[in-house]
Amino acid sequence: MSTVHSVTYQLLRRQGLNTVFGNPGSNELPFLKRFPEDFRYILGLHEGVVVGMADGYSLATGQPVLVNLHAAAGTGNAMGALTNAWYSHSPLVITAGQQARSMIGVEAMLANVDASSLPRPLVKWSYEPACAEDVPRTLSQAIHMANLPARGPVYVSIPYDDWDHELEDDAAQVVRHDVSYAGLPSAAQLEALAENLKQAHSPVLVLGPEVDAVRANSLAVELSERLCMPVWVAPSASRCPFPTRHACFRGVLPAAISGISDKLEGHDLILVIGAPVFRYHQYAPGRYLPQGAQLLHLTGDVQEAARAPVGDALVGDIHATLEALLPLLAQSDRVLPTPFLCHHLRRFPPDV
Amino acid sequence: MSTVHSVTYQLLRRQGLNTVFGNPGSNELPFLKRFPEDFRYILGLHEGVVVGMADGYSLATGQPVLVNLHAAAGTGNAMGALTNAWYSHSPLVITAGQQARSMIGVEAMLANVDASSLPRPLVKWSYEPACAEDVPRTLSQAIHMANLPARGPVYVSIPYDDWDHELEDDAAQVVRHDVSYAGLPSAAQLEALAENLKQAHSPVLVLGPEVDAVRANSLAVELSERLCMPVWVAPSASRCPFPTRHACFRGVLPAAISGISDKLEGHDLILVIGAPVFRYHQYAPGRYLPQGAQLLHLTGDVQEAARAPVGDALVGDIHATLEALLPLLAQSDRVLPTPFLCHHLRRFPPDV
Amino acid sequence: MSTVHSVTYQLLRRQGLNTVFGNPGSNELPFLKRFPEDFRYILGLHEGVVVGMADGYSLATGQPVLVNLHAAAGTGNAMGALTNAWYSHSPLVITAGQQARSMIGVEAMLANVDASSLPRPLVKWSYEPACAEDVPRTLSQAIHMANLPARGPVYVSIPYDDWDHELEDDAAQVVRHDVSYAGLPSAAQLEALAENLKQAHSPVLVLGPEVDAVRANSLAVELSERLCMPVWVAPSASRCPFPTRHACFRGVLPAAISGISDKLEGHDLILVIGAPVFRYHQYAPGRYLPQGAQLLHLTGDVQEAARAPVGDALVGDIHATLEALLPLLAQSDRVLPTPFLCHHLRRFPPDV
Amino acid sequence: MSTVHSVTYQLLRRQGLNTVFGNPGSNELPFLKRFPEDFRYILGLHEGVVVGMADGYSLATGQPVLVNLHAAAGTGNAMGALTNAWYSHSPLVITAGQQARSMIGVEAMLANVDASSLPRPLVKWSYEPACAEDVPRTLSQAIHMANLPARGPVYVSIPYDDWDHELEDDAAQVVRHDVSYAGLPSAAQLEALAENLKQAHSPVLVLGPEVDAVRANSLAVELSERLCMPVWVAPSASRCPFPTRHACFRGVLPAAISGISDKLEGHDLILVIGAPVFRYHQYAPGRYLPQGAQLLHLTGDVQEAARAPVGDALVGDIHATLEALLPLLAQSDRVLPTPFLCHHLRRFPPDV
Repeated sequence: MSTVHSVTYQLLRRQGLNTVFGNPGSNELPFLKRFPEDFRYILGLHEGVVVGMADGYSLATGQPVLVNLHAAAGTGNAMGALTNAWYSHSPLVITAGQQARSMIGVEAMLANVDASSLPRPLVKWSYEPACAEDVPRTLSQAIHMANLPARGPVYVSIPYDDWDHELEDDAAQVVRHDVSYAGLPSAAQLEALAENLKQAHSPVLVLGPEVDAVRANSLAVELSERLCMPVWVAPSASRCPFPTRHACFRGVLPAAISGISDKLEGHDLILVIGAPVFRYHQYAPGRYLPQGAQLLHLTGDVQEAARAPVGDALVGDIHATLEALLPLLAQSDRVLPTPFLCHHLRRFPPDV
Repeated sequence: MSTVHSVTYQLLRRQGLNTVFGNPGSNELPFLKRFPEDFRYILGLHEGVVVGMADGYSLATGQPVLVNLHAAAGTGNAMGALTNAWYSHSPLVITAGQQARSMIGVEAMLANVDASSLPRPLVKWSYEPACAEDVPRTLSQAIHMANLPARGPVYVSIPYDDWDHELEDDAAQVVRHDVSYAGLPSAAQLEALAENLKQAHSPVLVLGPEVDAVRANSLAVELSERLCMPVWVAPSASRCPFPTRHACFRGVLPAAISGISDKLEGHDLILVIGAPVFRYHQYAPGRYLPQGAQLLHLTGDVQEAARAPVGDALVGDIHATLEALLPLLAQSDRVLPTPFLCHHLRRFPPDV
Repeated sequence: MSTVHSVTYQLLRRQGLNTVFGNPGSNELPFLKRFPEDFRYILGLHEGVVVGMADGYSLATGQPVLVNLHAAAGTGNAMGALTNAWYSHSPLVITAGQQARSMIGVEAMLANVDASSLPRPLVKWSYEPACAEDVPRTLSQAIHMANLPARGPVYVSIPYDDWDHELEDDAAQVVRHDVSYAGLPSAAQLEALAENLKQAHSPVLVLGPEVDAVRANSLAVELSERLCMPVWVAPSASRCPFPTRHACFRGVLPAAISGISDKLEGHDLILVIGAPVFRYHQYAPGRYLPQGAQLLHLTGDVQEAARAPVGDALVGDIHATLEALLPLLAQSDRVLPTPFLCHHLRRFPPDV
Repeated sequence: MSTVHSVTYQLLRRQGLNTVFGNPGSNELPFLKRFPEDFRYILGLHEGVVVGMADGYSLATGQPVLVNLHAAAGTGNAMGALTNAWYSHSPLVITAGQQARSMIGVEAMLANVDASSLPRPLVKWSYEPACAEDVPRTLSQAIHMANLPARGPVYVSIPYDDWDHELEDDAAQVVRHDVSYAGLPSAAQLEALAENLKQAHSPVLVLGPEVDAVRANSLAVELSERLCMPVWVAPSASRCPFPTRHACFRGVLPAAISGISDKLEGHDLILVIGAPVFRYHQYAPGRYLPQGAQLLHLTGDVQEAARAPVGDALVGDIHATLEALLPLLAQSDRVLPTPFLCHHLRRFPPDV
């Protein structure tokens, strides 16, 4: 007969989450028992390390990754690392063992009181299923929530006594639930974008970590060469989206309102791809943009687009958009930027 | 000189939110003073009515709508109506007047303590700006958050003393911030969808309120006729997506797991567009789908797609997807369903 | 055999919550079936009215009162009235029917998604038990949380399928769980209080709604006469703590920082009992206290004491403190204040 | 002229929070500059260590302690240690530096987005003041909230640009705000308690960490000797409330429902002081109490009292209650329990 345990492992296997990063305690034992041969468990001795490893693994593979933490204390230890996972858009599916259901209300030792609030606001979605039957569907939802744009960490708290709960045979239906995403611009949106780029006298490209995350690096190179645009890396970027020895590469933008305006002075069009507009750091108020400049913003993150103080944003699939845009652009007769050789910058961020 | 008040009205005007639905108190007076000639204020005497009117206006116009409520008590009164706005995906931009900043912490009369928590979880996004300067940008973010898919209500709490705060001249930049959305499937995604429909021997169409919201009703009619599919309205729908006297129309699906499986028995492919899978009501456990049936799910709502217990979902722009899909489908040689004349159903839901 | 339903009614009966104020829907039916003869149900047709009636009933009886609302929509409708219940410290035990447990995660119709967050921050405590077995204990906790100082509304969400769940016979133990409260000052605290009052040349008394709530009105009269002090009602009070035709009565303090300082000018000691310090309304910054004045604050509300901007607070049982304090105070030889006859004030607030 | 910085240090000095435990980043610099000579800063290189040190320091001194963390990442790192501080009732006043106010909404680097939600539910109270003027009052409130029963950690997020904000001269009034607590039982409550103890044939004492926290250890010894009661330490206790070589000492109760009933079998009265009833760990359902036993519960924690599944609780000042109770109890003529010499237990928990 099916159990929550057996259906969950079917689900994880089908979704490709065979590697578990964790640091277990007693609450997690019923999940870990009968650990399948085709899964592997990567142990970390502090949850900051566990989430850090999982984050890196997810950035490298581009896939959702399973993390298993111990109740409130284990989750708490991990929350510093979650600030990185959040801004790196890492699809971490974080699970935490909860006490037995009847022991949560009395706040027994290792009860994770108000578990779904604990990791907020550092997760996209957080939930403790209301009954054992709903655990597999909840994990399916968690995987899809983590993986759909804008990607990011999610959290599921699972009570101790749920794992052995028996399920109807058709409960395994949730294993066959898939979600994909349509993010292509319309012909009109692409035309408008291309037209704006054609009209610009001095466009500049600013690239963020999402370009690297969706493997659009070479498309970005092609775009910069096609339009002979200088390229900056967006401030406070967590990944390197552009080869730093490329002739077009100018460096990393400063993380300040006025600093960015200064660096981009003279450009009439600023095309930002895969970054917030902008992830400032120093408090240096001023104009967001150089006088007369227009900013176009391509991003896969609705919140990034909505909260930006300036610009015209298009939310969609960056990779697909660049692929569709390039054929609409002729080779510019501007001169390619002169290589900006700076010993310092050639090393940091590292070449890709 | 610019003030928060003047820049906010520029922003609202540019984004087309010239109609304000509200029920004001003292906290809202600084927003309402110097109310521009080209704006109109629709007064309701209970906030449930105010949000209900705004919800209907938004459903009818398809646009974001501004609501202005009075602190915690006014917001509280409105929260029953917010449950409808949430599931109708109505882009309501709800603002509430807050006490003067220095009077919030002492919990003065009409202070909205922990204002951003109050409307949760019935809003997509909720915020009280950390300073007066950030009010216009916050409202810009709120409008875009409400309007981007999946649409829904948002909430902004604005302190009394912020409105007269003077701003730098370039603060009005936020007025020129626009966001659009790319939601077309790729050629491969469309091909797969078309192929699935072609292979099906007995496909059935289930339509939800989003079809009506994005004005894809006639595309849905065309699809049902092209493939000679019976059409059901998804359970608990808030809008009518299909003409109820059309030959293909079968009625509204029951709101129960087993009831839906029973009604859809015999179909090998279930195509659900613009609805959750499914918005059940009665508790009647059983198989989610008839034996052997495949479910395809088109939706603009990431959360709807992720939380569904079954099916293969594609998250994107429903209208654009149907437009792109229809040319890929040949006319079926199946017989068009016989009109299902039911006096009862001809009246409810109403013909469109 | 015991069920959640039978044990719950035993609990409610023993704790004296035999009157249920409500407006039910389908989720609440399993609670209401087999409604015992010795209970009564007061129906309201809008939840704002339901909570308003319960609030008034609780203020009048001084006891916790049971409210039963319908899921998220019913709770939402009630939340405006909760702002009053919160600041009146009304011990409302608000219950709401939730969907069947396995239907919450898919967000079935009438599911109360993230139910425990919904009424926050307008409740002291909010919870949805993690399993059926924990429902009676949760309700016991809710009653005690509502009733312990500082009193206030609490919220419990109860899934549809929990009521018929069978319980072990000893589950009814929770019915015999009582909590009382010790709030007497120490001898040293009483001495210090008395000494401060004795040393004052011109003390003044400010009374808030809690004086009326704990039925300490006549103790307050005695105190004012013993020390020949003028008496003000604290601003924005929800109950009348002092007879308004009494010679010592001066009126209701204005709800502004500077206004209060002005009214209390000349007093060297301000004794505030059973009110926040203060519930301001108008924004009129200035000195919190007249030059040289000391403020002593007796309250049963930890948060009221902690958030006050000025004064020395003692958190405890107001009624017991006044009873213990009076024997330590000799009759003052100051002249009793002259009756402040004001036709307007004699009517509002009403005599008690 | 006064600034937020100068008034804050006056406040901290007056309240005795001269020792700061922290791990700073750039957001905290404006607080730390001009660090007064009479303060000391204890640096930890990981926030888990910082909170751990502060927690221990607070347990040892019995006083509120100031912690200063770095934005969201620093707070996140500390949250595992907060689970201990929460259940140890440690009055930690945790502050975290926030970005400049105008940079929070755009989610600049080091912005602590939704800062007051971040540490929940592991703090008693959490707040980010709505303006610079309110920072000193907020910190005063935080200190009092942490220190009033039931004690526990609190959190305040303070924007970067608030520290240099100039204040009116009378803003320093908040420095002179004190709060104390009245927690003595009434004569009737004491009588009832004494009477219950007198009537019992075989009472047993169960002591929790709060006994040690309020330095009532020797009163507990006196009580056990007066009534010749065996003494158990409550399960999962974080502090040792009783000398483990004392004749009455029996050991630490097991952390399971049935285990506790077994150990306490034969007693007709169980007096629990300064502990939850109970902090179970293993899931072993059964009777909460031995057949026929009565449980009396003395605690300073309202939530502990309310959530207990059984017993009659009295919430108040444990130390004062024991002092007042002892004179009402005559020396029992029962035989003092025989020393329970167990090599294992003599070492753990350690003698005090």
